[in-house]
Amino acid sequence: MNSRRDFLQKVSLGLGVTALSGLPAAASDFAKIPMADKPLRVAMMGLGGYANIVAKGMQECKLAKITGVISGTPSKVDTWKQKYGIPDGNVYNYDTVNQLKNNPDIDLVYVTTPNSLHHKHVLQIAAAGKHVICEKPVADNAKQAREMIAACEKAGVRFYIGYRLHFEPHTREVIRMREAGEFGKIMHVNNFMGFKIGDPTQWRLKKELAGGGAMMDVGVYALNGARYSTGEEPVWVTAQESKTDPVKFKDVDETITFQLGFPSGIIANCGCTYNFNHGERLHLMGDKGWAEMVPAFGYGPIRGNTHLGPINQPDVNHQAYQMDGIADCILNNKPDPNVTGHEGLKDMIVVDAVYESIRKGGAKIFINK
Amino acid sequence: MNSRRDFLQKVSLGLGVTALSGLPAAASDFAKIPMADKPLRVAMMGLGGYANIVAKGMQECKLAKITGVISGTPSKVDTWKQKYGIPDGNVYNYDTVNQLKNNPDIDLVYVTTPNSLHHKHVLQIAAAGKHVICEKPVADNAKQAREMIAACEKAGVRFYIGYRLHFEPHTREVIRMREAGEFGKIMHVNNFMGFKIGDPTQWRLKKELAGGGAMMDVGVYALNGARYSTGEEPVWVTAQESKTDPVKFKDVDETITFQLGFPSGIIANCGCTYNFNHGERLHLMGDKGWAEMVPAFGYGPIRGNTHLGPINQPDVNHQAYQMDGIADCILNNKPDPNVTGHEGLKDMIVVDAVYESIRKGGAKIFINK
Repeated sequence: MNSRRDFLQKVSLGLGVTALSGLPAAASDFAKIPMADKPLRVAMMGLGGYANIVAKGMQECKLAKITGVISGTPSKVDTWKQKYGIPDGNVYNYDTVNQLKNNPDIDLVYVTTPNSLHHKHVLQIAAAGKHVICEKPVADNAKQAREMIAACEKAGVRFYIGYRLHFEPHTREVIRMREAGEFGKIMHVNNFMGFKIGDPTQWRLKKELAGGGAMMDVGVYALNGARYSTGEEPVWVTAQESKTDPVKFKDVDETITFQLGFPSGIIANCGCTYNFNHGERLHLMGDKGWAEMVPAFGYGPIRGNTHLGPINQPDVNHQAYQMDGIADCILNNKPDPNVTGHEGLKDMIVVDAVYESIRKGGAKIFINK
Repeated sequence: MNSRRDFLQKVSLGLGVTALSGLPAAASDFAKIPMADKPLRVAMMGLGGYANIVAKGMQECKLAKITGVISGTPSKVDTWKQKYGIPDGNVYNYDTVNQLKNNPDIDLVYVTTPNSLHHKHVLQIAAAGKHVICEKPVADNAKQAREMIAACEKAGVRFYIGYRLHFEPHTREVIRMREAGEFGKIMHVNNFMGFKIGDPTQWRLKKELAGGGAMMDVGVYALNGARYSTGEEPVWVTAQESKTDPVKFKDVDETITFQLGFPSGIIANCGCTYNFNHGERLHLMGDKGWAEMVPAFGYGPIRGNTHLGPINQPDVNHQAYQMDGIADCILNNKPDPNVTGHEGLKDMIVVDAVYESIRKGGAKIFINK
């Protein structure tokens, strides 16, 4: 074990991995380091579209690798076993999840099941004593998120949310500049995320699987972006909804605009949609400068400009960087970066307020932490 | 008079001046035509900063020229007389405005006095039987705007608002593309206008002169832009306010965000400020394309892109184009373009609703026309 600790220590010291623990350093470059001899061993739970993106990205990981799967679809399992060399002993279905606790070859489970299953699945993983990373949105609401955090704390496992942009170099550079005061006092934020949804039969359009619509799924990017653009937590929320296609969006929200009021007086004016393209943007305005990222939230490449010129940062694989960053924290027992369940809860408190404001005809909802 | 009518007819036919009457043609190019032998004769009322910009621009006009001034400041009058060759007989102060009715050398008065004086001054000009163009915002509220429209109609004079962007070629091209369906169905609009105000003693910060703050003065750009980006009239309004500098902005609003709901389901998510720069933008998203203008509302050059590439239109002097366009309507008895008092009223109805929403804590205000 000594050689592994030494190696990882070298990684940390030499490549600024501490940046991932919230320090304002440049993003680390895992691409340049050799594969760890004992990487973080990850099982994927839910083998849908995003699981494939994560698994493909993780082939670039230096500190993490996929060693298991949890799926209810045997045909998908066969493909994954072949593609990633997963042994039979590391294959689970939704009825055998609790047996994970007996498997020393899996350190962490990545939950990419539909949003409304996150709560149940994270509780199961925590009960099996494994660390867990769950896709955003953390859950259907803040109450569920609190239960998930409590369960993981009780079980002594780490609990992360797939906020990959907190590892993404362009995004990290904007956060660094903001923390360093390079924009001066932040005065306003204008974020939007969305896309025109395709297949009308997909789980995103089913409330019982998705929990909600655009706000739950893509609005969280605009919202999380408003929080990392300001470094503050909102104290009030207002929101408005539009539904132009009540057939396709009969169960879930199509387009929502929402405003966040922050303690310093900043208003973040945000929006999200499932029904059109070309809106994606993060735009922060300070009294000494500004940043604008377009695209700001997709899988990359992220592009951005500030008052000082283009943001020159490497284009990295978001999923690989995220998983190496989390692996670094777990393997080296470092403080967690800003992507834990608590971060997910902070977003869900606002999402709850957005829906409450809409239910109440746009009323201002004050948030009591 | 025949030669004049013939000349102006040629102007109209040859250069697409009809575009200014709301037809979806390219903006006309007044710069290429010779000076009219009998142009529209304009008196400037209020000789502040914007009057100077208008007068400077109007030196490029082919169909309009400055022939008079109305001012309470003799030193300013002297400068203007010299600069623009204004005879003593065409000089008025605020107590002699009614005598304009006896002056055949003035066809139209351009009111650029502080916003809260627009109502009083337009009523005076109408009573003097002169056509009038008034800067935006038309008045302090919709009630005043209605009174101004009624007074001008009763007096048989034309009443315009200084919506110069309706004559600006890049803006006109976006409107043309929207009307031609090139963006498809408009799905969303995101507009912002504002700047960091300088001199803390200026009239814009005094409610009794300005009527209100950022919303009245620059918010109207974002709002008018939302209306010409959609071609619809809003049916509901929500709004939020932030005041980070309660000393400087003790009388008027500093930063306001507002949302307009349109009949087709479009939400325009807008904002305005007097306290920071770098927010200016018009961004419309359709289901077949998009347009983004940055800068979108200033005195030019206006720049924009669409899904088809950069908007290639000439950079013109906004004030000259506006005044030639209005002169063309009056001299040739053409239908007025979309810049009449009625257009100003439509904006003021929304401005009233914005302030009402803020007074009611962000409540949704439904607009009954």
